[in-house]
Amino acid sequence: MAYFEGIHNIAFEGRSSKNPLAFKHYNPKEVVAGKTMEEHLRFAVAYWHTLTADGTDQFGKGTMVRNWDRYSGMDLAKARAEASFEFITKLGVPFFAFHDRDIAPEGETLQETNKNLDIIVDMMKQFMKDSGVKLLWNTQNMFTNPRFVHGAGTTSNAEVYAYAAAQVKKSLEIGKELGAENYVFWGGREGYETLLNTDMKLELDNLARLYWMSIDYAKEISFNAQFLIEPKPKEPTKHQYDFDAATTMNFLRTYGLQDHFKLNLEANHATLAGHTFEHEIRVASINGMLGSLDANQGDMLLGWDTDEFPQDLTSTTLTMYEVLKNGGIGRGGVNFDAKVRRASFDHEDLFFAHIAGMDAYAKGLKVAAKLIEDRVLEDVVANRYRSFNDGIGADIVADKTTLKSLEEYAFQNNPIRNESGRQEQIKAAVNEYLLSE
Amino acid sequence: MAYFEGIHNIAFEGRSSKNPLAFKHYNPKEVVAGKTMEEHLRFAVAYWHTLTADGTDQFGKGTMVRNWDRYSGMDLAKARAEASFEFITKLGVPFFAFHDRDIAPEGETLQETNKNLDIIVDMMKQFMKDSGVKLLWNTQNMFTNPRFVHGAGTTSNAEVYAYAAAQVKKSLEIGKELGAENYVFWGGREGYETLLNTDMKLELDNLARLYWMSIDYAKEISFNAQFLIEPKPKEPTKHQYDFDAATTMNFLRTYGLQDHFKLNLEANHATLAGHTFEHEIRVASINGMLGSLDANQGDMLLGWDTDEFPQDLTSTTLTMYEVLKNGGIGRGGVNFDAKVRRASFDHEDLFFAHIAGMDAYAKGLKVAAKLIEDRVLEDVVANRYRSFNDGIGADIVADKTTLKSLEEYAFQNNPIRNESGRQEQIKAAVNEYLLSE
Amino acid sequence: MAYFEGIHNIAFEGRSSKNPLAFKHYNPKEVVAGKTMEEHLRFAVAYWHTLTADGTDQFGKGTMVRNWDRYSGMDLAKARAEASFEFITKLGVPFFAFHDRDIAPEGETLQETNKNLDIIVDMMKQFMKDSGVKLLWNTQNMFTNPRFVHGAGTTSNAEVYAYAAAQVKKSLEIGKELGAENYVFWGGREGYETLLNTDMKLELDNLARLYWMSIDYAKEISFNAQFLIEPKPKEPTKHQYDFDAATTMNFLRTYGLQDHFKLNLEANHATLAGHTFEHEIRVASINGMLGSLDANQGDMLLGWDTDEFPQDLTSTTLTMYEVLKNGGIGRGGVNFDAKVRRASFDHEDLFFAHIAGMDAYAKGLKVAAKLIEDRVLEDVVANRYRSFNDGIGADIVADKTTLKSLEEYAFQNNPIRNESGRQEQIKAAVNEYLLSE
Amino acid sequence: MAYFEGIHNIAFEGRSSKNPLAFKHYNPKEVVAGKTMEEHLRFAVAYWHTLTADGTDQFGKGTMVRNWDRYSGMDLAKARAEASFEFITKLGVPFFAFHDRDIAPEGETLQETNKNLDIIVDMMKQFMKDSGVKLLWNTQNMFTNPRFVHGAGTTSNAEVYAYAAAQVKKSLEIGKELGAENYVFWGGREGYETLLNTDMKLELDNLARLYWMSIDYAKEISFNAQFLIEPKPKEPTKHQYDFDAATTMNFLRTYGLQDHFKLNLEANHATLAGHTFEHEIRVASINGMLGSLDANQGDMLLGWDTDEFPQDLTSTTLTMYEVLKNGGIGRGGVNFDAKVRRASFDHEDLFFAHIAGMDAYAKGLKVAAKLIEDRVLEDVVANRYRSFNDGIGADIVADKTTLKSLEEYAFQNNPIRNESGRQEQIKAAVNEYLLSE
Repeated sequence: MAYFEGIHNIAFEGRSSKNPLAFKHYNPKEVVAGKTMEEHLRFAVAYWHTLTADGTDQFGKGTMVRNWDRYSGMDLAKARAEASFEFITKLGVPFFAFHDRDIAPEGETLQETNKNLDIIVDMMKQFMKDSGVKLLWNTQNMFTNPRFVHGAGTTSNAEVYAYAAAQVKKSLEIGKELGAENYVFWGGREGYETLLNTDMKLELDNLARLYWMSIDYAKEISFNAQFLIEPKPKEPTKHQYDFDAATTMNFLRTYGLQDHFKLNLEANHATLAGHTFEHEIRVASINGMLGSLDANQGDMLLGWDTDEFPQDLTSTTLTMYEVLKNGGIGRGGVNFDAKVRRASFDHEDLFFAHIAGMDAYAKGLKVAAKLIEDRVLEDVVANRYRSFNDGIGADIVADKTTLKSLEEYAFQNNPIRNESGRQEQIKAAVNEYLLSE
Repeated sequence: MAYFEGIHNIAFEGRSSKNPLAFKHYNPKEVVAGKTMEEHLRFAVAYWHTLTADGTDQFGKGTMVRNWDRYSGMDLAKARAEASFEFITKLGVPFFAFHDRDIAPEGETLQETNKNLDIIVDMMKQFMKDSGVKLLWNTQNMFTNPRFVHGAGTTSNAEVYAYAAAQVKKSLEIGKELGAENYVFWGGREGYETLLNTDMKLELDNLARLYWMSIDYAKEISFNAQFLIEPKPKEPTKHQYDFDAATTMNFLRTYGLQDHFKLNLEANHATLAGHTFEHEIRVASINGMLGSLDANQGDMLLGWDTDEFPQDLTSTTLTMYEVLKNGGIGRGGVNFDAKVRRASFDHEDLFFAHIAGMDAYAKGLKVAAKLIEDRVLEDVVANRYRSFNDGIGADIVADKTTLKSLEEYAFQNNPIRNESGRQEQIKAAVNEYLLSE
Repeated sequence: MAYFEGIHNIAFEGRSSKNPLAFKHYNPKEVVAGKTMEEHLRFAVAYWHTLTADGTDQFGKGTMVRNWDRYSGMDLAKARAEASFEFITKLGVPFFAFHDRDIAPEGETLQETNKNLDIIVDMMKQFMKDSGVKLLWNTQNMFTNPRFVHGAGTTSNAEVYAYAAAQVKKSLEIGKELGAENYVFWGGREGYETLLNTDMKLELDNLARLYWMSIDYAKEISFNAQFLIEPKPKEPTKHQYDFDAATTMNFLRTYGLQDHFKLNLEANHATLAGHTFEHEIRVASINGMLGSLDANQGDMLLGWDTDEFPQDLTSTTLTMYEVLKNGGIGRGGVNFDAKVRRASFDHEDLFFAHIAGMDAYAKGLKVAAKLIEDRVLEDVVANRYRSFNDGIGADIVADKTTLKSLEEYAFQNNPIRNESGRQEQIKAAVNEYLLSE
Repeated sequence: MAYFEGIHNIAFEGRSSKNPLAFKHYNPKEVVAGKTMEEHLRFAVAYWHTLTADGTDQFGKGTMVRNWDRYSGMDLAKARAEASFEFITKLGVPFFAFHDRDIAPEGETLQETNKNLDIIVDMMKQFMKDSGVKLLWNTQNMFTNPRFVHGAGTTSNAEVYAYAAAQVKKSLEIGKELGAENYVFWGGREGYETLLNTDMKLELDNLARLYWMSIDYAKEISFNAQFLIEPKPKEPTKHQYDFDAATTMNFLRTYGLQDHFKLNLEANHATLAGHTFEHEIRVASINGMLGSLDANQGDMLLGWDTDEFPQDLTSTTLTMYEVLKNGGIGRGGVNFDAKVRRASFDHEDLFFAHIAGMDAYAKGLKVAAKLIEDRVLEDVVANRYRSFNDGIGADIVADKTTLKSLEEYAFQNNPIRNESGRQEQIKAAVNEYLLSE
């Protein structure tokens, strides 16, 4: 059945002046920097925001008008699954992503819950086969159910920890079954509300234990998805353990986990942590840890995770610049971890929002590719650090100097001439590329 | 000569009703939790804020009225050195801390600059011998001089890097000469203004190189101070590389430096990074990296480093709680990296502010010690995580479980009973200890 | 029936060492600064947080364990009403406050909804008579129902506006019926999500119209409660129109409403707007607009309204200082617009939290009264501005000077001597009063 | 003499591919929406940032390399005046703006200070005559000199108040002499450091007194510039009295000053206060108070006033949209209250930065004009509020309804149908206009 009647297939019938739901900048088959845009961007629809969320906020009930809301229980789950593939294929997106609890309701027992999952997973497998849509990643929701009030991998309650482990196991199996390219751990409630009642060391030790068990089990079932951790600094807890890219890498290194994980970075999580998105990507990239992107944007004047669809073109340009410099996103992708505003409650808004987001990324990709082609920033950087190419600079980077040898050099008292960083000019150049590309 | 005439020796003549400049809570010899308060707290006066700063801000000229301002050049440096020891001894503080540029002016050449340093260091050595005051730590200022406009260890200019290295060398020698217990690296301008012109990887590699050269040179001259890095997230650069404790530890681990450094944590830097001070201390502590404290407090409604003297008693209590749980501050101390407000321009304000800060820490120490003695939080924590003491919980922490065995356990579907985190009650208990101790 | 069995009446049986749910600082009958603490503080229980909220957050379902949760519909409403009076009387609090939708569910029609309200209001009237508990204020909830997605008094939909007006009318009648001392307007969704689709002028005009109609109707039914507006800067909307005290007063003055309203100020709303709570109270007070207080506290490192129970003693001291300087809170009170943490889900936590909050305010009141009695800050201020008591200063405040006469005075070039603001000393003095009172 | 040798006249020789210092989007004579861009934008160079600032920050000394730095005292002032006109005319900007202390140094006495001003003002008058450059506004600097440590119009010291008044008088005379189109009051240190020592009521009364004296004196000397107040929430004080547009208007209305002032709004001040720039402009505009703009942008991840040159094209578009909807900026203009980064220390950076800023505003103007021409947002708004055009909605805005009549209407229980706010689509449309205009 059709949940989005009257809305035409965007990817293939779009781009005409009569179709307001049409891409302006994204053409999946257009080649940019040696690959199709589709290959570069690997867009994914996020099941939770698009199929499951109803617009509830802290002060109000759901507003979203969804054709599948006439159903409940497993019927609702099945309707959503159908609707999801109709939506994804109409939008022409190659990937999707979900949590276990997005796709199927919990049952009376864990066994029943898992059975519910099996039913939907079977449906999805068929849908995927029919449509060619793939699973960018799946994950487990260990934060909505009240049992996780004190965390999951970092809970103070061993019963809850066991339950969480079982949930991870099942989700790994689902990932295997559906051929997920990545598997994400987002620390929903892995953090603390107050240090006063928290054994941080034990909690982090236990979290590492859960990760090691997950690595072992994935190996056991030959599930070779890339494992990803998604940093976030706060919300819902006062302090989330995976605060940002650096904090997460420090955790991984502490427990010897660094070769088993990469990072799934989110724009709004970056800004909540006090960083630009491009900063987080650069930090991950130079550490060889860039895994995948959760594309959205925050409201910089609000202090919570607003998860808006990305529309800031400078930001998408700098994001794709970092991705291209990283050699691409690899097995990762650009997942729209973004939600339509509570006041954008129509089905059409779902299309508008995704199209706007995909266009913003497509535009960013093209501008970034052109910037690199013209070596705009590359020349700035090469020139700026050129003193490390020979003489004392070359000795420094070749590890041939000591404090003594450098002091001897400094004692020559050569006049020091710095050059302007030219920030205003460089930013203006990026603007020009944005407007002209 | 006397720079602070009419102000009596606080430590020994204070605590009388006639002396408004008197401690209320700090008694150096009072024994708390098995050590004297002096041994616990190891207070230090910060030369830069107290002797050198003049109250200049971004919108106005200096306001501070200082008796040594009649001098200039090396005379001023000598006057400040004299004044510093008069101040420190009148205050009864056992330590001080300084940057190279705080104590002596730069000369025409690096050689002359170093000579200026030697003269003051000689004076200080004598003062230290006479007074018993010790050097908690020294460091190098690689941010005030315009040559460091693009950084020092992370500069884009190899000439500047060489100069910085020479400056570190000299400061290490000074530390050795004066018997510094620690040696601090604060990344003044080690960060970036815009990613667009920045080679982050090269900059961090070079910073690590500078640290390795420093370790080698310290060994060479048998200077065995504890090396410390002081995290700060931003200001003066848009983004400082040593953002917070976790970021700094990730850097250290990346470059194999983790055994050579501990952290010098500052309260206002913590809050600028989005953390409480106690969070940063806990993070360092469970990683064995707690080195020393820069005591101050920020204005939580302002977005810059206000460096106010610490007066929040709950904060000092939780700070000293973490320190006591860490087994003390070791070779570190409590350095007042704090400045009197621009409108508090009298000499007396320097005393008031330090006394207020020391009293706040002394009170915090006593409350924290009593909380621990009564096991207020210890019992909360022990009870909260008790499910990890036996049964499935004990198996988990003994690494005896797998996802499979935990799933089997979870399949029993035992009812999960969480217990309240009792945050409001616990905070009220801490309040009671604060008011009654 | 008893919803809080086993929990003893706090106000009258409390304060014993065996009762952990006991006041330490609040004694209703204790006289402070000429009035009983009860008269000063006029505490109120907030129905929405205490009786209705279930601990749902943006990432998780309700956690609260409440004895009345076995009921639903009007039975639930009745059970909550019973429980509320049991709670309020056990706590010994003289007031409560509610929204229409807190106390009774909506029916199929507005008429049925109003009937539901009538039933509960009748119950409450009897409870109030039996217990002596009074209604500090009531208000209408025009934000939870999806119809208010675009606002109520500032909606873009005239049908919604009419509905909102009808809701206000009924709530005014309820206030009249229950003898509410105040009537609050909190602009739930009165604000905007994006300026791009917003007619700000029309929305504010319409909001003012709603207020004028409310004033007229209150007069018509002889409901002479004090009308209050509660400022909040953001959340749930991106920008709430009543951003802070000054913005709200500017709105009131623009529409000639200033004599009909005072302000209901909330601590966490103040800090979200970038102000301290005491700042907002001072601003309202010097404009004669201090109406009532919503007592809570935010987490200064989080960017949303956490509505924690107040426990910061310095803040409650400065709050009560401003209230005492205002000549008291008048018909207003101290309403606990605060919620137990999601992890504090037991009934007992409700008691602990309120007791902690009341104790914090009681302590703050006592410290503030003592500060005033000793003229600690009064003397500082009187001395600081003494130059306006005579000479040129007296002429200035008597409006006797002109730029010319002041220039003539300045041309004398008298040396200008400022005095230190002594901020550190003053804050230390407040600390001392807190610890010793 | 030439301070900017080798840099060609931008406005008239620019726009060629060989000139890197060339406008891309700004053509003074191009007609947009019925007026030339020059008439719309009325750009001004800010003397303080461009001629006077040296790149000093809280952690470092000046870095700027300026040809006039070889001079000092009045010679430096004269050199800067010459350089300013060379810069302004080469840039092709029609206006400039300054504080008294930017253009001439203080002397030993106020009389001598005023004499210094007279000398430079005479030079400027001739330069203005020769070049056709006009004064957008001038103002007085009452924050740099230590005498203003406790404020100027809100000082605690009557001597300082008199001095400030004399300074305002002289600056009004300078404005008159140079034909300033506006006169700005920016409350440099008009605010407080701590409420604990502050008499807020007296300070605000005195500030209003200073404004009334200024109005009287301007009338006396027939200086009919538009008076402007520039809101800012914080920095340098902890809390500035003119927090934002609404707060400032509330102050003006409180003291009956509202007909004598408009607002000079600054982008970075808006965001520091928690608002977008377009919000502040809209608020001023619907109150008839939009006076002039201080064009810059902040770093949304930093908590201080970074005063960067404007480069965010969406922001300049929305800014100019609000200005066009206001019917233009009137006697105001677009003043670059922006500074080159400390690391952009060359003369050329001054040109690059201004050109980038002017281009960003020119582009914004063109996009905004096209959006209005096509009624993109106008149609959205007209449709969204159409229910207020007839029926019950028309009655509401015609003030024909009461709570009773609206309740009667609501009792009909007509189904309420809200329409999507379409935020994502609208933002995408603005993006399209930006990219295609």
